[in-house]
Amino acid sequence: MTDLRIGIIGVGLMGADHAERVVHQTSGARLVAVSDPDSARASALADRLGVRTIDDPLALIADDEVDAVIVASPGFAHAEQLHACLDHGKPVLCEKPLTMDAESSLRVVEAEHKLGRSLIQVGFMRRFDPEYAELKKLLDSGDLGRTLLLHNVHRNKTVPETFRSEMIVRDSLVHEVDVTRWLFGEEITRITVHAPTPTSLVANGALDPQFAVFELANGAIADVEVFVNFQVGYEVRCEAVGELGSATIGLGSGVLTRAAGHWGGAVPDDFRQRFALAYDIEVQRWVDAAKRGEIDGPSAWDGYAAAAVCTAGVESLTTGRPIEVEMARRGDVLPSVQP
Amino acid sequence: MTDLRIGIIGVGLMGADHAERVVHQTSGARLVAVSDPDSARASALADRLGVRTIDDPLALIADDEVDAVIVASPGFAHAEQLHACLDHGKPVLCEKPLTMDAESSLRVVEAEHKLGRSLIQVGFMRRFDPEYAELKKLLDSGDLGRTLLLHNVHRNKTVPETFRSEMIVRDSLVHEVDVTRWLFGEEITRITVHAPTPTSLVANGALDPQFAVFELANGAIADVEVFVNFQVGYEVRCEAVGELGSATIGLGSGVLTRAAGHWGGAVPDDFRQRFALAYDIEVQRWVDAAKRGEIDGPSAWDGYAAAAVCTAGVESLTTGRPIEVEMARRGDVLPSVQP
Amino acid sequence: MTDLRIGIIGVGLMGADHAERVVHQTSGARLVAVSDPDSARASALADRLGVRTIDDPLALIADDEVDAVIVASPGFAHAEQLHACLDHGKPVLCEKPLTMDAESSLRVVEAEHKLGRSLIQVGFMRRFDPEYAELKKLLDSGDLGRTLLLHNVHRNKTVPETFRSEMIVRDSLVHEVDVTRWLFGEEITRITVHAPTPTSLVANGALDPQFAVFELANGAIADVEVFVNFQVGYEVRCEAVGELGSATIGLGSGVLTRAAGHWGGAVPDDFRQRFALAYDIEVQRWVDAAKRGEIDGPSAWDGYAAAAVCTAGVESLTTGRPIEVEMARRGDVLPSVQP
Amino acid sequence: MTDLRIGIIGVGLMGADHAERVVHQTSGARLVAVSDPDSARASALADRLGVRTIDDPLALIADDEVDAVIVASPGFAHAEQLHACLDHGKPVLCEKPLTMDAESSLRVVEAEHKLGRSLIQVGFMRRFDPEYAELKKLLDSGDLGRTLLLHNVHRNKTVPETFRSEMIVRDSLVHEVDVTRWLFGEEITRITVHAPTPTSLVANGALDPQFAVFELANGAIADVEVFVNFQVGYEVRCEAVGELGSATIGLGSGVLTRAAGHWGGAVPDDFRQRFALAYDIEVQRWVDAAKRGEIDGPSAWDGYAAAAVCTAGVESLTTGRPIEVEMARRGDVLPSVQP
Repeated sequence: MTDLRIGIIGVGLMGADHAERVVHQTSGARLVAVSDPDSARASALADRLGVRTIDDPLALIADDEVDAVIVASPGFAHAEQLHACLDHGKPVLCEKPLTMDAESSLRVVEAEHKLGRSLIQVGFMRRFDPEYAELKKLLDSGDLGRTLLLHNVHRNKTVPETFRSEMIVRDSLVHEVDVTRWLFGEEITRITVHAPTPTSLVANGALDPQFAVFELANGAIADVEVFVNFQVGYEVRCEAVGELGSATIGLGSGVLTRAAGHWGGAVPDDFRQRFALAYDIEVQRWVDAAKRGEIDGPSAWDGYAAAAVCTAGVESLTTGRPIEVEMARRGDVLPSVQP
Repeated sequence: MTDLRIGIIGVGLMGADHAERVVHQTSGARLVAVSDPDSARASALADRLGVRTIDDPLALIADDEVDAVIVASPGFAHAEQLHACLDHGKPVLCEKPLTMDAESSLRVVEAEHKLGRSLIQVGFMRRFDPEYAELKKLLDSGDLGRTLLLHNVHRNKTVPETFRSEMIVRDSLVHEVDVTRWLFGEEITRITVHAPTPTSLVANGALDPQFAVFELANGAIADVEVFVNFQVGYEVRCEAVGELGSATIGLGSGVLTRAAGHWGGAVPDDFRQRFALAYDIEVQRWVDAAKRGEIDGPSAWDGYAAAAVCTAGVESLTTGRPIEVEMARRGDVLPSVQP
Repeated sequence: MTDLRIGIIGVGLMGADHAERVVHQTSGARLVAVSDPDSARASALADRLGVRTIDDPLALIADDEVDAVIVASPGFAHAEQLHACLDHGKPVLCEKPLTMDAESSLRVVEAEHKLGRSLIQVGFMRRFDPEYAELKKLLDSGDLGRTLLLHNVHRNKTVPETFRSEMIVRDSLVHEVDVTRWLFGEEITRITVHAPTPTSLVANGALDPQFAVFELANGAIADVEVFVNFQVGYEVRCEAVGELGSATIGLGSGVLTRAAGHWGGAVPDDFRQRFALAYDIEVQRWVDAAKRGEIDGPSAWDGYAAAAVCTAGVESLTTGRPIEVEMARRGDVLPSVQP
Repeated sequence: MTDLRIGIIGVGLMGADHAERVVHQTSGARLVAVSDPDSARASALADRLGVRTIDDPLALIADDEVDAVIVASPGFAHAEQLHACLDHGKPVLCEKPLTMDAESSLRVVEAEHKLGRSLIQVGFMRRFDPEYAELKKLLDSGDLGRTLLLHNVHRNKTVPETFRSEMIVRDSLVHEVDVTRWLFGEEITRITVHAPTPTSLVANGALDPQFAVFELANGAIADVEVFVNFQVGYEVRCEAVGELGSATIGLGSGVLTRAAGHWGGAVPDDFRQRFALAYDIEVQRWVDAAKRGEIDGPSAWDGYAAAAVCTAGVESLTTGRPIEVEMARRGDVLPSVQP
C-alpha cells in the first residue's frame, strides 16, 4: 500500500515533534509539506526533512499532494482549518482543543456529521498511553466492580508566565476531562473548581494549583489536582476506585492494583512483552545504519566474545570448577580497528 | 531516501516477529522476501504481508531485490549464511548466537575484518532497551564512581522440555555475558557456574536454576541467577554497585538509584518524555485508520464535550460555585451515529 | 520511679487491646482494674491478666489504687466519665470521639480549663504513627515550601451493617479531620461531603464511599476519600503537596518525596534505625523466656555454627578458593537435644 | 510477676542501646547494674539511669541482685563471661559473636549442654525483625515451593578504619551466615569468598566489597554481597527464590512476592495491624507524660474541634451543600493557654 502523504500546519513545539515522528517513527506515512506563519521556522524544518513549505494553511489543506493533515496551529485557528479539511474530505488529526469554545466546536461536529464520514480525530493522546489503555481495559473488564471514584493528579514542572488561571482549565484540566469521560463512558454534568491559596513561586497572579471535582451522569465522582508550577517535574497519576478494588497508573510501574488483600502489578509472560520496545529500537537503528553502510549495535566481535565465555561456562557447569575463558586478543584479530 | 529492502531468513517466533516489525513499525524499510525450510509457514506469512518467498536462504541473500538480511534461522545455520552475506557485501542483523562455538565465530570475525567493512550486527537487543541504555549512561557518567559489582537475575516462566542444561548457558546466560561485557567495557576472564539442587517441576533432568559468577579483566565481579522454569513469568533485573551508590533496572520503574542517603528515581521534566510512546502510537494508529477512511481515536464530539466542560470549569473557578455543564444531547446532533 | 497504675473502662475491641498493651508492651505502667457493662467479658480479661474488675466505671475512676484511666467505652458514655476524671484529678486517655457533639465537647474543654491542668488526652493515635510523625516533621521543616494541598485516602475492608452514613463521618472521617488540623496547624472552616453512587455491596443504605473537601483558615484545601467497605483491606494514605514538592505516606515505604526532579525515600544511616524494632522484640522475648527458664531465639549452637562458617570464610578470602566448612556433628555434641 | 533484674556487661554502642531499651521499652524487666572497663562511661550511664556500676564483670554476673545478664563486651571477653553465667545458672543474652573461634564456641556449647538447661541466647537479632520473620513464615508455609536460592545484600554507609578484611567476614557476613542457616534450616557446607577490586574510598587495604557464595547441605545456594563502605547508607536485602516464586525483604515495603503472574505485597486486614506501633507509642508516651502530670498528645480542644467539623460534615452530607464550620474561638475558651 502506498504511503499516506501528510501535511502539518503549525510547526511549533508539538508540530515539529509530529514532523519528526512522521519522518522517523511512523510506518506507512510520508511527510510532504509544512506550513507556519513563521516562515523561517517552517523553512528550517522543511529543509532539514526534505519537504515543501506552503505558506497558506488553507493551500496546504487543498494541495493535491497532501492526503491528510495534522493541525498543530494555535487553538483560535482550528475552526477554519477543520472546516477546510472537511470541505476537501481530508482526514485530520487536530491537537486539542478542537476549537476555543463549545459553540464553535458544536458547529464542527455538525459539519462533519453532514458529510457522513469521520474525518476528524482530536489529539487526546492519553488514550494511547499504554498505562491508560491498560487501566481502561481493566475497568471495562469488570474485575474491580463498578467504578465509583477517580482521583487524578496533573503536575507540570513550570509553565511560561503567560499561562494564566483560565488556561490551566482549558489546556491542562482538559486532559482529565477527556480521561474521565473516556474511562467512565459517561458525561460530566457538574464541575466545581476550587482555588486554594496559590503557590508563592508564581508572580503572574495565576490561581495555581487548582482542585476540581467532577460529578458524572451516573453518580460517580472524579477529582483532579492541577498544579502547573510544581517545580519538581512532570507527573500524571490516575487512580480508579471500584467496588472490589482500585488501580493506579502514573507511578512509573504500570498498573498497580489493590484487590483481594494484595497490592501489586503483573509479571509479564515472556520476553517479547518486556523487550518489545528494545526490538523496535534495535531494528530501526540497524536499518538507519545499514543505509549509511554502518552498524549501530553489537558487532561480530561481541558475538565471538560471548561464544567464548559460554563455552567456558558449559565446561564449568559440567566440572563444577571455575574455568578460565580462552579468547583471541582483539588486537591480533582486528589489528586496525579501534577498541 | 529510498526504503531499505529487507529479506528475512527463518520465520519462526523471532523471524515472524521481525517481519511484522519491519512492515508495521519500522520507518524507511520494506520487507521484500522471507525464507524458511518450512515452506508452508513461509508462504502463509509471505501471503499475509504481501512479499515473496525464496526457498534457498543463500538465494535470498544473493537476490538483487534484497538490500539487507535478518538472520533468524537456527544457530547451526548462521555461519554459512553470515559468510554468504559477507560475500555479497550485504548488511545483516543476526540473532544470537553469532555461531555455535568460539572457533567458527572467530572465523566470521576474521572474514568481516578482511572486507574492511562492518556488515554484521548481532541481536543482543538489551543494549537498546531504554532501561539498560539509561543504566549504561549512568555508569559511564561516573556519578556512582567505579563499578565494582553487577547482580543479575534472568527468569523465564517456563521453557520447552528440549531446553537442557547447556542451552541455559548458551541461549539464556549469553545475554548477561553480553550485558556484563558491555556495561563494564571489559572482557570476562573466568567463569564459575553453580548448579544448585534443581527445581522439581522440570522432568528433563535440566540443571535449573543455575548461578554463575563472572570475574572480569579489571577485577570486578558479576553474578547471574538464570532460572528458566520460574513459573511466575518473565523477569530480568540488573543491579550495578559502584563506589558511591547502586542502580537497579528491571523493577518496572526505570532506573532506581541509591546514592547520597536516598533511593528513588527521576521525575521526567516534561510531557514529551512521559507520553512519547503515546504520541507515537496515536499517530501510527491515525495513519493506519486514515488509509481505511476512518478514525481510530477521540472524535470531534469528544472535542466538543471537553470544550463544554471546560467552559463550565472556568465559570466555577471565577464564581467559586459548582456549575452545571451545558451540552447538546448527542442524539440530537448525531442522530444516526451509534453512541 | 514507681509504675503508673491504670484502670480501663470498656474492654471491647479497643479496650482489650489497650489492656494487653499496658501489660505486655508498656514500660513504667501497670494495669490494676477493668470495668465493662458486660461483666463476663470484664472478668474473663481480668482473670487472664490478674487484675480486678470494678463494675461501676465511676467507682473505677474514684478508686485509690487507680492513678490514671483509659476510656474505651462507647462515645455516649464519655462525657460523664471525663468529667469524673477531672473531678478526681486523674489523667485520662480517651478514645475518640471526645464526646458525641460539639456542645458537650466544649463543656469538657471548659471544665478542664477551670482546673488549670491538662488531664485529658484524646486517642487520635495517627499523630504517633512513625510515618505521620515523619511527614509532620518534613512539612514543618519547610523543605517542601508552604503546604498547599492534602490528599487523603481512608479505606476499611468492611464494617458491620450497623455502620451508617453519619458514622462514616463521625468515626472514620474524624481521623482525617484531626490529621488535617494537626499537619497544617490550622482550623477547618468549611466542609463539603460528596456522596457518589454508593457501592452495591452494602445493603444497609449507607452512603459509602464519601468524598470530602475541607477548606482551611489559611486558604489551603484537603480532600478525603472515605470508603469503609472497600473489600480489599485496610488502607490509609496521605499526600501533602507543597510549593517545592510533595510527600506521601501509607504506601508501606515510609515517606516518599517528590522534590528537585527526583522521587524516592531515605536510606537509613545505620543498623539501629533499620533494626530498632528487631532489637526491641528480641530483648522483650528474651526477658519473657528467661522468666520461664528458657530461651526464645538463636542458641549457643547457632553461635558455634556461625563461627565455624566464618572461619572457613576467612580462609577462602585469603586463599581465593572454595573451602569446606568443618563443624562437629550436632548429634555428637548435643546427644539428647531435639534438632 | 516480679520484674527480671538485668545486668549489662559492656556499655559501648550496643550495650548502652540495650540499657536504654531495658529501661524505657521493655515490659517486665528492670536494669540494676552495668559494668565496663571504662569506668567513667559506666558511671555516666549508671547515674543517668539510676543503677549501680560493678567494675568486675564476673562480680556483676555473681551478684545476687542480678537475675540475668546481657553480654555486650568485645568478642574476646565473651568465652570467660559466658562460662561464668553458666556456672551461676544465669540466663544470658550474648551479642554476636558467641566467641572468637569455632573451637572455643564448641566448648561453650558443651558446657551448657552438661548443665541440661538452655541459658545462652545469641544476639542474631534479624530473626526478630518483622520482615525476616514474615519471610521465614512464608518459606515454611511451602507456598513458594522448595527454596532453591537466597540472594543477600548487606551494606553499611562506612565503618572505622580499624575494620579490616577479616572483620567483614566475622562481624558483617556472620549475620547472613545465621540468616541462611535459619531460613533454610540447613547447615552451610562450603563457602567461597570473592574479593573484587576494592573500593578506592578506603585507605586501610581492606578487601571491601566482598562477594560470598554458600553451598548448603541440601544442595541450595546462597550468595551475599557485603559492602561496609557503601557511602549511601545502611541497606540489608534478602530475596528467597523458590520453585513457585520469590520473595524479597529489605525494600522498605514488607515482603514483596512474585508468584502466579503477579508481584506485590499484602494489604493489611485492619487498622490494628497498620497502626499497632502507633498505639504502642501513644500509650507509652501518655504514661510517661501522666507521671509528670502532663499530656503528650491531642488535647481536649483537639477533640472538640474534630467534633465541630464532623457536625458540619454530617450536615453537608445530608444537604449536599458546603457547610461553614461553627467553632468557639480558642482564645475565648482557653484565655491563658498558649496556642
